[in-house]
Amino acid sequence: MLETLSINKAFEGVQGVYRHASTATNTDMTFSVFVPAHEEGEKLPVVWWLSGLTCTHANVTEKGEYRAACAKHRLIFVAPDTSPRGEGVPDDPDGAYDFGLGAGFYVDATQDPWAANYRMWTYVTQELPELLFANFPADPSAQAIMGHSMGGHGALTVGLRNPDRFRSVSAFAPIVAPSQVSWGQKALGNYLGPDRAAWRTHDAVALIEDGARLPELLVDQGDKDLFLEKELRPELLRKACDDAGIALTLNLRPGYDHSYYFVTTFMADHLAWHAARLT
Amino acid sequence: MLETLSINKAFEGVQGVYRHASTATNTDMTFSVFVPAHEEGEKLPVVWWLSGLTCTHANVTEKGEYRAACAKHRLIFVAPDTSPRGEGVPDDPDGAYDFGLGAGFYVDATQDPWAANYRMWTYVTQELPELLFANFPADPSAQAIMGHSMGGHGALTVGLRNPDRFRSVSAFAPIVAPSQVSWGQKALGNYLGPDRAAWRTHDAVALIEDGARLPELLVDQGDKDLFLEKELRPELLRKACDDAGIALTLNLRPGYDHSYYFVTTFMADHLAWHAARLT
Repeated sequence: MLETLSINKAFEGVQGVYRHASTATNTDMTFSVFVPAHEEGEKLPVVWWLSGLTCTHANVTEKGEYRAACAKHRLIFVAPDTSPRGEGVPDDPDGAYDFGLGAGFYVDATQDPWAANYRMWTYVTQELPELLFANFPADPSAQAIMGHSMGGHGALTVGLRNPDRFRSVSAFAPIVAPSQVSWGQKALGNYLGPDRAAWRTHDAVALIEDGARLPELLVDQGDKDLFLEKELRPELLRKACDDAGIALTLNLRPGYDHSYYFVTTFMADHLAWHAARLT
Repeated sequence: MLETLSINKAFEGVQGVYRHASTATNTDMTFSVFVPAHEEGEKLPVVWWLSGLTCTHANVTEKGEYRAACAKHRLIFVAPDTSPRGEGVPDDPDGAYDFGLGAGFYVDATQDPWAANYRMWTYVTQELPELLFANFPADPSAQAIMGHSMGGHGALTVGLRNPDRFRSVSAFAPIVAPSQVSWGQKALGNYLGPDRAAWRTHDAVALIEDGARLPELLVDQGDKDLFLEKELRPELLRKACDDAGIALTLNLRPGYDHSYYFVTTFMADHLAWHAARLT
């Protein structure tokens, strides 16, 4: 059952926000979908957007400036939430922004008390795709995935582990090696436990080291991003891709920070790049 | 004294948010300015954006999707707040959204207790322009003005009363005849008092009836806008412009509502239209 929370015409298409009872997270989940104008019965390519720490579906929906490009290239754009939410869903005991609510890290937690709800991997790779293809004019054979920061981590790991599902994978300022940085160590340690072997399937650099392959990747990164050196470390992805023969386009953008002002500047470029591979 | 609250690089330009002590409103006022990339010493055309009910500077700054077009056409984009704010500033006694805070209606109030702070006409037509031209690379000989809803009312009235200052005037879903609709009657009655003669200089249709002239106007309006028939009434502007010989382009957009999803869809068109007249 899909509940429509809002529908707005935009760029000749429809921007919707929807809610459903998720079996993956055992909570209600909210997500947004933009569907460009199309013919009756036509199926359109899909771009999955995974958001960063503290975000809900709403941040990119309101501030992402993707609709013009999606209308032009005729791409469906899907934006899930970043964690389960609601009564009874545990949060960071200190209320920190980088763990718990708004910070699901796109993993299936195995540790208590997180395992009951924090199953974002299953949610974004199985449950929500099934819901999307059953309810929207989306073509499962033409999918791309992208994201920002923690959502860039999500896009890279989901993409690397599903190379046949996604024709293209890109990211803005992604966390490329969560096992090696404090955001990721906190999240993966709490959600997956202390055994670091379990972390490697949720770490893009480790996945590549362990043999995961994609023909190419596109990453944009601002050089004035306050998280660049401590949490993001694109040089680790550069090295892993070079060693593995993955064609990584890493655009270091002078003067840009970590915000949506950076993301929106290059959003149309990324969507054009995906469109060229999807259509 | 201009205090910088935030600076973000975007579309190769700078999106800033600033605060200053306003002598017009006797409060601190916050506004945003986007300055595209430009040569040292160069002056760029300016587009003024006036926002609608409940908005601050932030709504259009975050959700307006104007930066791509402003960067392309090399336009400075300025977004003031919609009312004075802060301790001691009176608000609607019932906390209604359509009067008081967030609802200054771009007039200089003459009635107590509003007259002490609600002087948005002087603020947007005198004080903020002086501040802008003293502090930013803006060309006072190349100005345009536009706005949304209550801000469309502001853009039309400011434009009609300053035909030599603005090369172009446009609006999204504007309140065109506040004297004839409930939003406007409440606001103008409270801010300006019961004498309706005083309202006519803040009513676009009345201004045109009383002889104000512009060569042309551009207005976009969604036909699914819930405020269309009761508050906006573009047919009144259509008649006034036809009677006065003003070339009004009134685009009634099928399926669009009153939201930023509507505004953003046609923002680039409006900015291209202004750019053709400014550059």
